[in-house]
Amino acid sequence: MPSLAFIGLGIMGLPMAGHLLGAGHQLRVFTRTKAKADALLRRGARWCESPADAAREAEFVFVCVTDTPDVRDVLLGDAGVVKTVKRGAVVVDHSTISPAATREMAHELSLRGAHLLDAPVSGGQGGAQQATLAVMVGGDRDAFDRAEPLLRHVGKTITYCGPSGAGQLTKLVNQILVSVTNLAVSEALVFAKKNGLNLKTTIDAVAGGAAGSWQLANLGPKMVDGDLRPGFMIDLQQKDLRLVLQSAEQSQASMPAASLVHQLFTAAQAAGHGKDGTQALFTVLEKLAAIH
Amino acid sequence: MPSLAFIGLGIMGLPMAGHLLGAGHQLRVFTRTKAKADALLRRGARWCESPADAAREAEFVFVCVTDTPDVRDVLLGDAGVVKTVKRGAVVVDHSTISPAATREMAHELSLRGAHLLDAPVSGGQGGAQQATLAVMVGGDRDAFDRAEPLLRHVGKTITYCGPSGAGQLTKLVNQILVSVTNLAVSEALVFAKKNGLNLKTTIDAVAGGAAGSWQLANLGPKMVDGDLRPGFMIDLQQKDLRLVLQSAEQSQASMPAASLVHQLFTAAQAAGHGKDGTQALFTVLEKLAAIH
Repeated sequence: MPSLAFIGLGIMGLPMAGHLLGAGHQLRVFTRTKAKADALLRRGARWCESPADAAREAEFVFVCVTDTPDVRDVLLGDAGVVKTVKRGAVVVDHSTISPAATREMAHELSLRGAHLLDAPVSGGQGGAQQATLAVMVGGDRDAFDRAEPLLRHVGKTITYCGPSGAGQLTKLVNQILVSVTNLAVSEALVFAKKNGLNLKTTIDAVAGGAAGSWQLANLGPKMVDGDLRPGFMIDLQQKDLRLVLQSAEQSQASMPAASLVHQLFTAAQAAGHGKDGTQALFTVLEKLAAIH
Repeated sequence: MPSLAFIGLGIMGLPMAGHLLGAGHQLRVFTRTKAKADALLRRGARWCESPADAAREAEFVFVCVTDTPDVRDVLLGDAGVVKTVKRGAVVVDHSTISPAATREMAHELSLRGAHLLDAPVSGGQGGAQQATLAVMVGGDRDAFDRAEPLLRHVGKTITYCGPSGAGQLTKLVNQILVSVTNLAVSEALVFAKKNGLNLKTTIDAVAGGAAGSWQLANLGPKMVDGDLRPGFMIDLQQKDLRLVLQSAEQSQASMPAASLVHQLFTAAQAAGHGKDGTQALFTVLEKLAAIH
């Protein structure tokens, strides 16, 4: 069995690393706050003092951190993966970051004979815990074929999307869909509420047809109940929308709706909803409608 | 069995009237172009020379025309239903029209002792043919209870939404969801295309998760294939969005996304796509992205 490393044990990374360990692999781990690794270390994972230390000896190096600068630091920093990575090793980055930066870092690693796969995930903390994530992968096809059996331990839908960056771009497509469909649901329910409709009856009447979506079925009832607990946090949605708008500008794609929802989420953050779930967009639109 | 009348035998009304006739009811029919009634007349429906003539003797009068002025003419015009409608009769309006105008017309009919139910449908021509429509009903609850067994001949999901106008308002909620979710799909696929992704692979990678919707699953592939044949026509979507924005203004609900999609559909109409399906929004956004 190949030797693995996992860097970044946050709410997503920790359960994903646990699945790989559970499948019987040797696992070297590093994360900024060592205490987060305790449970894995008790189960036999080996603590490492830096990304470079973790990558040493590993045939596959998994990374799951937050944003582009974090990945750059893990991969190319002074104690980064690039310092020790084995020739032929595959680095799998599960973070959602800039497609352009991904391509640059893939090039840097290739100079050391290693492959970088961009492999952002969707499905949230629940998907990570239940190993039902969707994994969208870009990079070298052979490297993907070698990594795929390992990805099946953490995800249900594993898609090879194309060359380096294609996984990140596909994740950004996902985020455009998620956020603009959320806006559709929020605005529709504000209209319903301002016009005196029973919101639960309204959702039931329309959810089964052409108006239906995951966002309506899952976030609609939370909006009605005022349940703002995060499935996916507005602060993270905003980070992803910044990546969308940046890539859109670079590719000369005009994104009026993604741009609008980004602005409305900025209003949500200003109103203190950054750490709430994306369904708080409803709350913000409702307040907007109530200003007079 | 109650005697029925059906007024308006267009692409929606004709199959709906056929289901009521097929269930064994006596059916009096009127529509502007008599030839459209031929098939029903051969099956035993009785031709009438005006809405007033059709409504005479009928316990339930169904109406399925296009816009608010059409319904007003059918119900309150010189040869309108109001001239002959029986006391206690139930008028069921399947058209999608102004909620405020619906309430006014319900009042006019109530002066003659008749009930108006607003009962707009969703599900398109296919839903009408297969009797799988969603029917959203507003008006007097007892009148709804009397009409419901008949509505079950034309629809699958029959929802009582509240007092007069509530069916129309629920349909407008449906149209906000349908049109803004369509915008989400169009914009996401333009982003994907401009960034060189394989569109079918992209849809497969994301459709099963939080990004999923009826619009993505059903219109996404048509966008990819350039199939602009109408399931629902942009000209009709625009009529409904005008009703949305009008009702939103009256109820002081702010609708930034519905407003945006209305403007983009206006661009689509200007580019000659008015009679195309709503998936032509993708084509328009793609052209927008290609202007330089």
